[in-house]
Amino acid sequence: MASYCCRLLNFKTSHNPSSLPLSLKLTVRSFSAFMSPPSTAIVYYQEGPPDSVTKMVKLPPVEIKENEVCVKMLAAPINPSDINRIQGVYPVKPQMPAVGGYEGVGEVHSLGSAVKGLSPGDLVIPCPPSFGTWQTYVVKGQSVWHKIDKGTPVEYAATVFINPLSALKMLEDFVDLNQGDAIVQNGATSMVGQCIIQLAQTRGIRSINIIRDRAGSDEAKEKLKNLGADEVYTESQLEVKNVKSLLANIPEPALGFNCIGGNAASLVMKFLRQGGTMVTYGGMSKKPITVSTSSFIFKELSLRGFYLQNFMTPSGAEECKSAIDYLLGLMREGKVTYDMEFAPFENFHAALDKSLGKLGSQFKQVIKF
Amino acid sequence: MASYCCRLLNFKTSHNPSSLPLSLKLTVRSFSAFMSPPSTAIVYYQEGPPDSVTKMVKLPPVEIKENEVCVKMLAAPINPSDINRIQGVYPVKPQMPAVGGYEGVGEVHSLGSAVKGLSPGDLVIPCPPSFGTWQTYVVKGQSVWHKIDKGTPVEYAATVFINPLSALKMLEDFVDLNQGDAIVQNGATSMVGQCIIQLAQTRGIRSINIIRDRAGSDEAKEKLKNLGADEVYTESQLEVKNVKSLLANIPEPALGFNCIGGNAASLVMKFLRQGGTMVTYGGMSKKPITVSTSSFIFKELSLRGFYLQNFMTPSGAEECKSAIDYLLGLMREGKVTYDMEFAPFENFHAALDKSLGKLGSQFKQVIKF
Repeated sequence: MASYCCRLLNFKTSHNPSSLPLSLKLTVRSFSAFMSPPSTAIVYYQEGPPDSVTKMVKLPPVEIKENEVCVKMLAAPINPSDINRIQGVYPVKPQMPAVGGYEGVGEVHSLGSAVKGLSPGDLVIPCPPSFGTWQTYVVKGQSVWHKIDKGTPVEYAATVFINPLSALKMLEDFVDLNQGDAIVQNGATSMVGQCIIQLAQTRGIRSINIIRDRAGSDEAKEKLKNLGADEVYTESQLEVKNVKSLLANIPEPALGFNCIGGNAASLVMKFLRQGGTMVTYGGMSKKPITVSTSSFIFKELSLRGFYLQNFMTPSGAEECKSAIDYLLGLMREGKVTYDMEFAPFENFHAALDKSLGKLGSQFKQVIKF
Repeated sequence: MASYCCRLLNFKTSHNPSSLPLSLKLTVRSFSAFMSPPSTAIVYYQEGPPDSVTKMVKLPPVEIKENEVCVKMLAAPINPSDINRIQGVYPVKPQMPAVGGYEGVGEVHSLGSAVKGLSPGDLVIPCPPSFGTWQTYVVKGQSVWHKIDKGTPVEYAATVFINPLSALKMLEDFVDLNQGDAIVQNGATSMVGQCIIQLAQTRGIRSINIIRDRAGSDEAKEKLKNLGADEVYTESQLEVKNVKSLLANIPEPALGFNCIGGNAASLVMKFLRQGGTMVTYGGMSKKPITVSTSSFIFKELSLRGFYLQNFMTPSGAEECKSAIDYLLGLMREGKVTYDMEFAPFENFHAALDKSLGKLGSQFKQVIKF
């Protein structure tokens, strides 16, 4: 973080690194043994619409201090949370100007003199993630970087943290589930949704999945079933008096996940068993969650929220790293998969437009540097 | 329960005990050493509007088995839950015909031969409560009855279970509170609300209280402050951008209680601190609870429900008894008080009308037999 601020500070004084005075360029070069390469980055100077406030700019080299590692980024996704952060709707705000992106993967380029346990060429991810992965070279303290198995496909390494780890934590941290138990979720086609289906299946947990009514919903159903979903319903299929009557051999779920709100959240609650828990981790419909008094008193539902940020404490770092290694193992074995589309970094803004939904529903965009 | 069904079974065969054939009356009398006195009871034959489906009827004597105790009832309240049960809106339904009432106090009248630890004249309450306290004599197994200190005012003994115990359990079972912490509640003038204020005060816990806007709200505020409330606001006073700015020296509450729903529930959530818990135990406005996604994700609120019935398991009976003794002790010391109005049993239906709100807001009605 310190080096990153430092880079932005340099940057701020000139506002266009290519116009740096020659004397400064020479100063930079004279320390080149301890400096990173220049970096190309997606920078925003103020919060606002991501497609207009972000610019691709060249940042000058920064010093690599003795405990720091310079990583050449290989891939980084465009997540909805990255977009929300640029829009300014997230409570945690980076200092302006800021480099976008929050998770990603890279290989070690060069090391400060005091760094141990890492070598050039090692595959690393920031763990927990931190601001500024949308750039070609990132310099951060050694403790930020987690070395991972080189056999991991970069697109999975780049995307393991925000969505798959959320799915894993939500399955593990709220209700003790046993083999044969069931969960219910809306937004099942989302990346978290797909991970929940597959992680549940590895544990022998059944999944009841709710998706939107839309063109192609039959295909979406088929696809989720191929991932291991036990039941998939569109919202309109659940316009019945008792949704539970649809379940044949699946037990009433004790745990539900909501990333939509509105009616889709009510449907999750309808499936839940007495004393069940619904965990909200998103609100894609922008509608609130409405709950009857009797759901709390007689059905004894618990409503909770999940925000991955809260697990990104220094004390939780070791637990996160072992969870990440577990997920990457499943990914290497092909037991957790999801759709992604690579986008070359130079086409960043085209990928951003896709992520903003301008071209309709699209696969997760993963920037390849 | 067995004896009670038996009484109703006798009763069902004649439908008017005063018209019992003489031979049956003689049969009853010939076993009088093991029989209860006849009982006058508030009976309903079907669910519906309480003022039209309930009748005061005379029930014939029932046998007192060797493990049973016949209790002469002294007092029993009319609780909203009694009314809801007659209306049929509660999930737990007694068998029809049923005697109304659920909690109360009486003195031991006569005992089965195998009963130990109780003597005629002892003050007892059904603990946990069970159906049928609105009658002059109740016969139930010994395990139902909990002997209490004879110095306890009968109106408090009669009402200790449903409301004060709910207040105590809700304060103790959801969040670990320490001296100096705070709670927030709506419906603060309710009996549970008044108990929460006083129980919080005995533990050094501050209370923030929300009441309806109505004629007399200044008096209500004054009264709650005299009970120990730290802050009392009407809903309209909380139409400000940031309700927490109203709190001077009171910390943000970690625990809130909702018995209203709608806007009054939203106000409780607004006061709660990051990670706080709101417990719903009623829905007086008949409006649902509406929650934003960000309340779950960024504010990490937990929403739970409380239903006293769930603590009335055989395994929880001993814990309940010690909690009841603790509450009755506070009541004898005058540390937990609330308003009640005695109504003679013969005027039951006038008291019921008051409880149904036909005459506006009234004190809790306690039937005196």
